[in-house]
Amino acid sequence: MSRQAIEAAAARFAPHEGAFLRRTPLWKLPGAALGVACAEVWLKLEHLQASGSFKARGMLNRLLANPIPASGVVVASGGNAGIATAAAARRLGVRCEVFVPTVCSPAKQAKLRELGAHVVVGGDAYAQALDASMERQRRTGALVTHAYDQPEVVAGAGTLAREIDQDGGRPDSVLVSVGGGGLIAGIASWFEREARVVALEPELAPTLHAARRAGAPVDVAVSGVAADSLGARRIGAIAWEVTQAHVADSLLLPDAAIREAQLTLWKDFKLSVEPAAALGLAALQSGAYRPAADERVCLVVCGANLDPASLS
Amino acid sequence: MSRQAIEAAAARFAPHEGAFLRRTPLWKLPGAALGVACAEVWLKLEHLQASGSFKARGMLNRLLANPIPASGVVVASGGNAGIATAAAARRLGVRCEVFVPTVCSPAKQAKLRELGAHVVVGGDAYAQALDASMERQRRTGALVTHAYDQPEVVAGAGTLAREIDQDGGRPDSVLVSVGGGGLIAGIASWFEREARVVALEPELAPTLHAARRAGAPVDVAVSGVAADSLGARRIGAIAWEVTQAHVADSLLLPDAAIREAQLTLWKDFKLSVEPAAALGLAALQSGAYRPAADERVCLVVCGANLDPASLS
Repeated sequence: MSRQAIEAAAARFAPHEGAFLRRTPLWKLPGAALGVACAEVWLKLEHLQASGSFKARGMLNRLLANPIPASGVVVASGGNAGIATAAAARRLGVRCEVFVPTVCSPAKQAKLRELGAHVVVGGDAYAQALDASMERQRRTGALVTHAYDQPEVVAGAGTLAREIDQDGGRPDSVLVSVGGGGLIAGIASWFEREARVVALEPELAPTLHAARRAGAPVDVAVSGVAADSLGARRIGAIAWEVTQAHVADSLLLPDAAIREAQLTLWKDFKLSVEPAAALGLAALQSGAYRPAADERVCLVVCGANLDPASLS
Repeated sequence: MSRQAIEAAAARFAPHEGAFLRRTPLWKLPGAALGVACAEVWLKLEHLQASGSFKARGMLNRLLANPIPASGVVVASGGNAGIATAAAARRLGVRCEVFVPTVCSPAKQAKLRELGAHVVVGGDAYAQALDASMERQRRTGALVTHAYDQPEVVAGAGTLAREIDQDGGRPDSVLVSVGGGGLIAGIASWFEREARVVALEPELAPTLHAARRAGAPVDVAVSGVAADSLGARRIGAIAWEVTQAHVADSLLLPDAAIREAQLTLWKDFKLSVEPAAALGLAALQSGAYRPAADERVCLVVCGANLDPASLS
């Protein structure tokens, strides 16, 4: 993964900027605004991205960088990756099939259909939906999008870091939530060692943390408040490689701290975000990450696919 | 009202920037992103302001520009003006009494108490709460904040326009929701005729529109989805004077269009805003305001004091 791949993604995005992909706001606040003893906290408001999460970047890049057969694209995901693939496919006017397990809520299935996707309920667990999607792909030859472990998906996510750089300059540190690792791989590939990139995971979904302890990617059990979007079972191969090279810190956060930060973002800042997007503030509020007094910390607020009633 | 008064307010705010008042993001999107046939739509995300609405600016300026007696400040409001006064008083460490009518919900009363205010339930209707607050003021000599019709409150609101100017340059037009008119008076005082300032009101709360028809401020009946924050019964005297000089267009919007725009802002842009903050998009979506093809339209997204469950 290289800066050039990220620049190439940004160039592909140009005709879609605004009409689909959005340059999301970078909100700079003094640390005191969040009760944090550091110079500045920057909030990259990526939850305002098309499709409601950063994943629109990766999925659009995957679709733009490859020829798309008449059978379209196929993805196995009931979450942000499925929504982002469906949204990108609609933008490009191509067919999209989304395989979801039976546990995918009717509301999420309806959202996917609203975006024009064909939803196929393929088994009780995610693994079965994935198997069914692969079986279908072999028959139709459709282009597959993966939620995090494809080079185009990682490079697309990296354009978020490029925007931070262009709009706000270089932060000292960037705090990033990790599920399968597509987002942190893109961000760390952009900043390399010019900013300290910190990996944050729920204690109950520790794919990167567990891999570091084991010395290689391993399967982990996932549960908890953020499992919906950070519930990958294993860190991606690309993310593993990139984070080994460029990410020094891997921190775990308890669900209670994540939920508290999510509620703070709503109550005090009127930002409606999903739990996965609150890990950065959770790390600062809980003291899991302690910035230096003169530090400029950037938090990536990565998604807003939630039922707003959960903030009431 | 003058630019100097607004500059003076901004100078007073300097020690409170970040730690209390926030420079809210200005998000520029191509018109196509919102399905609008104009060059650019700018969203001033003022619903992210401290206290959840633009009113923090006016109330802080009122408190900073006057000596505050030991009896503190007093306000009659169960809505954004009360919350903003309580928040500003807490910031300055002064006593705050908020008079509300019995219809003020327990949740709102709790929010006011959380901010350290003494809440006094003073009668069944707003007018009785107001009378009770005035009676108390005569006894205690407390400083009164008014929701919209005080020069410091209008000048404070005007700092929002100054920020737009500084951060984004001059838009061609600014669409502003009107209740008592404090916000539009501040914005029109800043831009004067350098940008076209457009007044937007719900059909069911038409204080400015009715005053224009009558040739002078008149009482109107108020109801509907935005009455909570745009429910003043009469346009303020300052707003009347300023808008007569600087505001050419006064448009009315049906509740259905306002509600639809509020839901669009959530579903497609992940912005959780109160109905009053959706009038700008409602005017564009409904065609009530039709910008020119090359126009840069700024919408003031003015508040987010809502129950998020109302967006589910």
